Amino acid sequence: MSWENNIRRVVPYTPGEQPKQQNIVKLNTNENPYPPAPGAAEVLAGFDTALLRKYPDPNAQMLVDAIAKTYGVRPGQVFVGVGSDDVLSMAFMTFFNSEKPILFPDVTYSFYDVWADVYRIPYETVPLDADWRIRPNDYARPNGGIVFPNPNAPTGVLESLDTIEQILQANPDSIVIVDEAYIDFGGVSALPLLDKYDNLLVVQTFSKSRSMAGIRIGFAIGSEKLIGYMNDVKFSVNSYTMNHLTIQCGAASLADEPYFRDCCGRIVKTREAAKEKLASMGFSFPDSKANFLFATHETVDAGRIFEALKQRSIFVRHWDKPRIAPYLRITIGTDEEMAKLYAALEDILREEAGK
Amino acid sequence: MSWENNIRRVVPYTPGEQPKQQNIVKLNTNENPYPPAPGAAEVLAGFDTALLRKYPDPNAQMLVDAIAKTYGVRPGQVFVGVGSDDVLSMAFMTFFNSEKPILFPDVTYSFYDVWADVYRIPYETVPLDADWRIRPNDYARPNGGIVFPNPNAPTGVLESLDTIEQILQANPDSIVIVDEAYIDFGGVSALPLLDKYDNLLVVQTFSKSRSMAGIRIGFAIGSEKLIGYMNDVKFSVNSYTMNHLTIQCGAASLADEPYFRDCCGRIVKTREAAKEKLASMGFSFPDSKANFLFATHETVDAGRIFEALKQRSIFVRHWDKPRIAPYLRITIGTDEEMAKLYAALEDILREEAGK
Repeated sequence: MSWENNIRRVVPYTPGEQPKQQNIVKLNTNENPYPPAPGAAEVLAGFDTALLRKYPDPNAQMLVDAIAKTYGVRPGQVFVGVGSDDVLSMAFMTFFNSEKPILFPDVTYSFYDVWADVYRIPYETVPLDADWRIRPNDYARPNGGIVFPNPNAPTGVLESLDTIEQILQANPDSIVIVDEAYIDFGGVSALPLLDKYDNLLVVQTFSKSRSMAGIRIGFAIGSEKLIGYMNDVKFSVNSYTMNHLTIQCGAASLADEPYFRDCCGRIVKTREAAKEKLASMGFSFPDSKANFLFATHETVDAGRIFEALKQRSIFVRHWDKPRIAPYLRITIGTDEEMAKLYAALEDILREEAGK
Repeated sequence: MSWENNIRRVVPYTPGEQPKQQNIVKLNTNENPYPPAPGAAEVLAGFDTALLRKYPDPNAQMLVDAIAKTYGVRPGQVFVGVGSDDVLSMAFMTFFNSEKPILFPDVTYSFYDVWADVYRIPYETVPLDADWRIRPNDYARPNGGIVFPNPNAPTGVLESLDTIEQILQANPDSIVIVDEAYIDFGGVSALPLLDKYDNLLVVQTFSKSRSMAGIRIGFAIGSEKLIGYMNDVKFSVNSYTMNHLTIQCGAASLADEPYFRDCCGRIVKTREAAKEKLASMGFSFPDSKANFLFATHETVDAGRIFEALKQRSIFVRHWDKPRIAPYLRITIGTDEEMAKLYAALEDILREEAGK
């Protein structure tokens, strides 16, 4: 017997690389290529550091109120956390305590099975169809909860509210979590369904569309009952998760809707141009409504392209996993970054064709 | 059957009040009365907000390295989290997975039983003796782990390294967590015992002695094996817990040892003066080595004093719990704040004596 017998042993999630070199083109973690709303810089410039000696508001009320106002819900319907990973993790711990398996797609955000493992939650994956789409009927069976991203990751495929509502209708006894990390790049949020379903939880993040991956803000919106249960668990884990700077910078970002719309619009425009350009080079991909493309080449192996891009200091993401190994996930950067990507890809494809 | 059947239901921890009024004397949450090291303000003034669009370093290496250097350990021995509550919560989840109960004192940090409940960890409390001291022999029995603060909260009582070592010697098969949130106010850290015990975890925080409760930094130091297991769990919950600003401000604080020593010294000086002053007013208390006193009055009820202070906009802490109900926990503030407290107490005691 040793103290090692009582360790919770897990295989952790592997985040995308954060290379330390300068002058790279970083298209591997779906970061926004544009800076946060100017209000965030104003917060930091005017911040009185002496305030840091005091605990922050455990309810992060300034931020919660700003989110509630932005999305037209009551403050009691909003939960905030340290990025949407913290929010999703809390939701798994709070809501998925059945002996029946939770359900999520086979190709999806690769943190779901990690949370299930760490919290000892049984799960089953449900295959997407050949077009990477969710078939709502597949979710019409006994389960301990349901979670999926919309648009899905890493495919970028958006499901309609009709599909989501079919899943909700078939599952009045399960919590259904819709992970909308990428919803602001052309998707339609499930938030309006909250009026009809008190078992729906919608999760969003400041990391993508609001250019604030580095400050860590995610949030969930649901019925006041659901959010109350989540807060009870959160206050049983850590009273003060959001620091003063995070609360104020987050609220400043929400106050600048035009900047937000403009950034998202620019990324969507670059993405649509990228679709044309990559198609012309022999790539195909499901139609993405996210800030990335999930692309496979007609002749050249994705792993080889991934490595060749890396040698040229261009980072994208590649997983050696069933179904998705032939694909690269390419974050939409600035037009300048994308031009560098296209040039490198043309170069690589030429080299490979000559072999 | 309903989705509510699968909820994790818990009774959360209640943090000390964070009153929104200005011009109060806030001696209720053991915050430091002095601002953080000036380096933190320099970080914010020089910070390029555009960096926030990128994810922070998931390993928070700059901060981990600075802690390792400060405390003379290897970076692989350091775990960082969102305040020591986050660190302790992760440690409970990682290390306390036995069917045997974990042990902690009956009078102690009131978050321990909350974490045990949320993570379904069996626990037993071990009574402190009549002088609020730990008897090491009480911990020489089968258990699934041990945790206690040193100095203890809310008593302020410091145990010797000899006591801690006796507990470690009796428990080679358990993880022993020493929660040193208040160690910098005159205690002796258990860190040197790490050379002999690979099952010891020492937890500290930037919230008290480093005046940074509002930015959320806690850390644990232990054997590389222990820290490795904790990181596996942390990376199964949330990859990026420490934001860019937190990492940089934390490192700046550690770089300024003279400021840190000076702040702690001032608080210790004020605390020792407070002991004399409160004793002269009829209060008694265990000898505190923390930044608070745990005081009871010879004639006047603690609950009445608590309420009367609050009416005078002076906030201290009081729990209606067995053994500790006759006591107030009073944070050591500036000399000016303490003078206001003494004046109010004299006033209240005079009023009560006249009744």
